[in-house]
Amino acid sequence: MNSSNIRIALVNPIYGGNVGSVCRVMSNMGLSDLVIAQPRQLDMDEAAKMACHSGEILQSIKSFNTLEEAVADCELVIGTSARRGLYRQHALTPREAAREAVDRADSGKVALVFGREDKGLTNDELAVCSRIVRIPTAEENTSLNIAQAVMVFCYELFVAGGEYEPPVEKSEQASSGLREIMFGIWRETLLDIGFMESEKADHMMYGFRRVMGRGAQSVDDVKIMMGIGRQAQWAAQSKNRQKDGDQSASLCRENVEKI
Amino acid sequence: MNSSNIRIALVNPIYGGNVGSVCRVMSNMGLSDLVIAQPRQLDMDEAAKMACHSGEILQSIKSFNTLEEAVADCELVIGTSARRGLYRQHALTPREAAREAVDRADSGKVALVFGREDKGLTNDELAVCSRIVRIPTAEENTSLNIAQAVMVFCYELFVAGGEYEPPVEKSEQASSGLREIMFGIWRETLLDIGFMESEKADHMMYGFRRVMGRGAQSVDDVKIMMGIGRQAQWAAQSKNRQKDGDQSASLCRENVEKI
Repeated sequence: MNSSNIRIALVNPIYGGNVGSVCRVMSNMGLSDLVIAQPRQLDMDEAAKMACHSGEILQSIKSFNTLEEAVADCELVIGTSARRGLYRQHALTPREAAREAVDRADSGKVALVFGREDKGLTNDELAVCSRIVRIPTAEENTSLNIAQAVMVFCYELFVAGGEYEPPVEKSEQASSGLREIMFGIWRETLLDIGFMESEKADHMMYGFRRVMGRGAQSVDDVKIMMGIGRQAQWAAQSKNRQKDGDQSASLCRENVEKI
Repeated sequence: MNSSNIRIALVNPIYGGNVGSVCRVMSNMGLSDLVIAQPRQLDMDEAAKMACHSGEILQSIKSFNTLEEAVADCELVIGTSARRGLYRQHALTPREAAREAVDRADSGKVALVFGREDKGLTNDELAVCSRIVRIPTAEENTSLNIAQAVMVFCYELFVAGGEYEPPVEKSEQASSGLREIMFGIWRETLLDIGFMESEKADHMMYGFRRVMGRGAQSVDDVKIMMGIGRQAQWAAQSKNRQKDGDQSASLCRENVEKI
């Protein structure tokens, strides 16, 4: 994602704390271009307090008299609105808008515009935006904190931009073949420790297979269970060498048969 | 989505303001079951200030000595971690976790667990969780405000739960047939207003079609453009009646030919 082409524009924000929180969110999501249109006097102490590790963004905010000026160099301007009236049927979801924003940011500047804490964007300001987005909320409380609204968008941008860790770093899913090796080891183990007898082994293995089919998903998971199985065989054999004929290991068997 | 089965569990939170912000976020996303494990003395004035329109959630927080107790009745416990060590390869994305949480909430209680502002969850607390989730962030600033982290999850739950407005309320996409009616009207209009002459009409319509193919997406969009086209015809004919032979309407034609 071309993050340097994504601008967050706040129109006439009231609270310094919120502006600081917006800086932090932007920093978390790898953005840095923040502008304010129609600025008021803000409590900059509050702003600095909330802008953990993102003071640079706070220091480099640019101010403009009007929204038009703040986004004049942008190719795509996306406005946000909590209102359900005029724009309801045409509003995009944050996810839809994020996809378009990321695509367009490849070639030009894109602005996401957020209104005042109390009244949002005016109709004239919404008219400057070529897309309107509404963050879905419960009917009972549709008023999002402005930094929370910015969070949702920046998060969706981050996801749409493929900025997740590359999936290759995820532990690989285990193959059926590897799982069968694990089941083979455990079949021996469950016999060795006296959990089941060979004539009931197939039946007893169903429950174990069900549990492991859900639980042991990745190669790492399966290898852990293979290690435990082998270790249990080793321990059972040591024990058998010590006191031959001991049957205590099968005490809890009947509980598991009911699984 | 069975929202009443989704619990947010905060472990040992430090700041009342953050707890209040969490209440607001939950209320925005239709959730209400908030618990605190290992509670400290919180600044409840700060909490109340941030909990806009969600004072009920703040008032009904339940406290527990330990995380185990706070989630004892839950079938699925999802922990959150910003750390990239131990759990990195096994961590789910918020989107993956939200889908599972919504599915499981149909039949039983699901908890989402968030750690302290400064240190997150301990390894012992993470061990209580059967899933670990990491919110993706930029490498440069991985520390999310706790209420922002809750926002991302609750938003993903809301989306996964299909709590968006029903799509039937969206303005319907225009059919090719309806668009052709619009183009027919505008062909007449562009001839009537003297924007093009009939021998060049097909060529001139390509640019107009391209603009409208991108711009007029919904039935509403197309109907607006049909209305404008008809009105322009009417106005042009009135004008022609007034001063026959006037050619001024075609003044800007050459600019558009270059589109």
